[in-house]
Amino acid sequence: MSRRLRRTPYTDRVEQSGVRGFSVVNHMLLPKAFGSTVEEDYWHLRKHVQIWDVSCQRQVLINGLDAAALLQWMTPRDISKAKVGDCFYIPIIDPKAGLINDPVMLKLDEDRFWLSIADSDVLLYAMGLALGRGLDIELSEPDVSPLAIQGPKAEALLVDLFGEQVREIGFFKFGWIDFEGTKQLIARSGYSRQGGYEIYLEGGHLGSALWDAIWDAGQAYGIKPGYPNLIERIEGGLLSLGNEMTRDNNPLEIGLGKFCTLDGSIDYIGCDELQKIAGQGVQREIRGIVFDGDRCPVCSKLWPVMVGSKQIGGVTSAVWSPRLKRNIGLSMIDRDYWKAGQVVTVHSEDGEVRPGEVSMLPFS
Amino acid sequence: MSRRLRRTPYTDRVEQSGVRGFSVVNHMLLPKAFGSTVEEDYWHLRKHVQIWDVSCQRQVLINGLDAAALLQWMTPRDISKAKVGDCFYIPIIDPKAGLINDPVMLKLDEDRFWLSIADSDVLLYAMGLALGRGLDIELSEPDVSPLAIQGPKAEALLVDLFGEQVREIGFFKFGWIDFEGTKQLIARSGYSRQGGYEIYLEGGHLGSALWDAIWDAGQAYGIKPGYPNLIERIEGGLLSLGNEMTRDNNPLEIGLGKFCTLDGSIDYIGCDELQKIAGQGVQREIRGIVFDGDRCPVCSKLWPVMVGSKQIGGVTSAVWSPRLKRNIGLSMIDRDYWKAGQVVTVHSEDGEVRPGEVSMLPFS
Repeated sequence: MSRRLRRTPYTDRVEQSGVRGFSVVNHMLLPKAFGSTVEEDYWHLRKHVQIWDVSCQRQVLINGLDAAALLQWMTPRDISKAKVGDCFYIPIIDPKAGLINDPVMLKLDEDRFWLSIADSDVLLYAMGLALGRGLDIELSEPDVSPLAIQGPKAEALLVDLFGEQVREIGFFKFGWIDFEGTKQLIARSGYSRQGGYEIYLEGGHLGSALWDAIWDAGQAYGIKPGYPNLIERIEGGLLSLGNEMTRDNNPLEIGLGKFCTLDGSIDYIGCDELQKIAGQGVQREIRGIVFDGDRCPVCSKLWPVMVGSKQIGGVTSAVWSPRLKRNIGLSMIDRDYWKAGQVVTVHSEDGEVRPGEVSMLPFS
Repeated sequence: MSRRLRRTPYTDRVEQSGVRGFSVVNHMLLPKAFGSTVEEDYWHLRKHVQIWDVSCQRQVLINGLDAAALLQWMTPRDISKAKVGDCFYIPIIDPKAGLINDPVMLKLDEDRFWLSIADSDVLLYAMGLALGRGLDIELSEPDVSPLAIQGPKAEALLVDLFGEQVREIGFFKFGWIDFEGTKQLIARSGYSRQGGYEIYLEGGHLGSALWDAIWDAGQAYGIKPGYPNLIERIEGGLLSLGNEMTRDNNPLEIGLGKFCTLDGSIDYIGCDELQKIAGQGVQREIRGIVFDGDRCPVCSKLWPVMVGSKQIGGVTSAVWSPRLKRNIGLSMIDRDYWKAGQVVTVHSEDGEVRPGEVSMLPFS
């Protein structure tokens, strides 16, 4: 691996923990496998606590008097409702309402924000917009590297380490902790449905120290190294940019309607198109698919979802659910077929034709 | 691997050819290893011909009356000098003259261009600029997937397959070939110093057919599957975005001065800053480093280059050269030390301290 695939402040510790493979997000390493199976890690995540190097959730700093205006231009969500200390999930869309990214916006101050991004260069997009408009805004990728502590025992662990104020942080809110003489941002958030926190470590030189502190305090809770878990993510109906969401998808069909202002009270890139789509009604929507057969392979390309000889959708992520004891997947489904219980076949890339049915999300 | 790490039109054939590993560039798979070693592949590339899936060199289509104006705003190179049929290497820089990307611009028509990009989302940047300025320009990622045919026997192979007109294409020019009833762009270019072509296949459904046609015709020339070869690249002094070039580097220090217009005859983002840097003289410049010891590891982080106890540079890529029988690397070097022959030590990430010296590029 070359320097282009950037290491993180935690990569040394991740390697010492026996990492066996990485993915790449935002030109940065994301650990994807340790000594155990994804299934073992899934059960562990649901019962205990894990430490995840999610530094690849890079931050885009947007700072200056026009910061909020630039941000509002980028997203259909009304950001004037955000208070300092809020994490706001904000879809970013293009003029045709296609999804560019789905970051979490952290409002640090009235005119100072971080966007915690999925896998596309939002910084370059924001730079282009600001340069094009002639806005004088500070835009950069600060030295901030999120470390996620996920699982039902995350709160107890972090209370031990940083005190009771961690408990008071609400869901999708952030507060501050002291670490080695520095003030660090901590949010109650993360890419799982098992609860937990993300520490947005500012200062990469503190990476190993933070990892060690959490690791040591975590021994009492059976802590293990982990990563965003595919089984848990799909069961929980958590979508992924590049998998479920691409520029071919608008936020309404992907279930993000509640984050979209459609009444004309704010203006943003893609507003006209989104209003048009809303007026006509979406033609397809994201759904779960439950399907039969042996453990399905990894979904590396679209798997046709058929009703008879008609393609009515395409699976974008899939996995064997050890809890439901069936394969589950995520798929866009055409409106005539999107009711739960619709019988379908899934044509997985191993050549199998698997009977299944449409399900609502999250999987129950 | 998930769908987010996109397969290419050639991935099926790459897998059938025994690929053993991929890298990720522009959210897409780049094969990085087949059955043989990088060293065996290096010798083969210098003597014969290889087929490389470089679909990850995505194209950004810039089309419309303002296309040339937008492009000129993005790069210090005077693009008015490009003719239809030219490939122009154009650094793209930010307002502080930091490198955003270093694509090859293909001038398809007076107001229609492709940018064949390195690993950053130039499409999003260009979209931001166009939206910010209110330009009405078509910007998209077309269904175009370059396939590189590299090595001294590439020309003979492609003449066999597509006729004598392939021979007439000049270096960094492009022409057109007929393939299965379609017209396809072919350029004399590629990420090696061994000569060769890149076919910009338009229409992913033709991927396997094109691969097969070249593979079959290549049997007479000892064709093998390959990939941009680290040994050949470093020996040849070919730089890589994310390794040698980041937003912390300006094009002058990276040896791209000949592509930068500094006389004020054109205006572009970063022009003022670049003129200032040129006026003051660059403080460091890219150089080669030749150094001792056993085969060095892969360079995954900056390796300090020292003169005594003073750091005067940092290695960004390194490899054992089987031809020079020494380790070689690429490094920025401070101006007081950048003369060839300067004695240094290289502190590689395996903990070794390796004596070496500064060299000009390419390595001779």
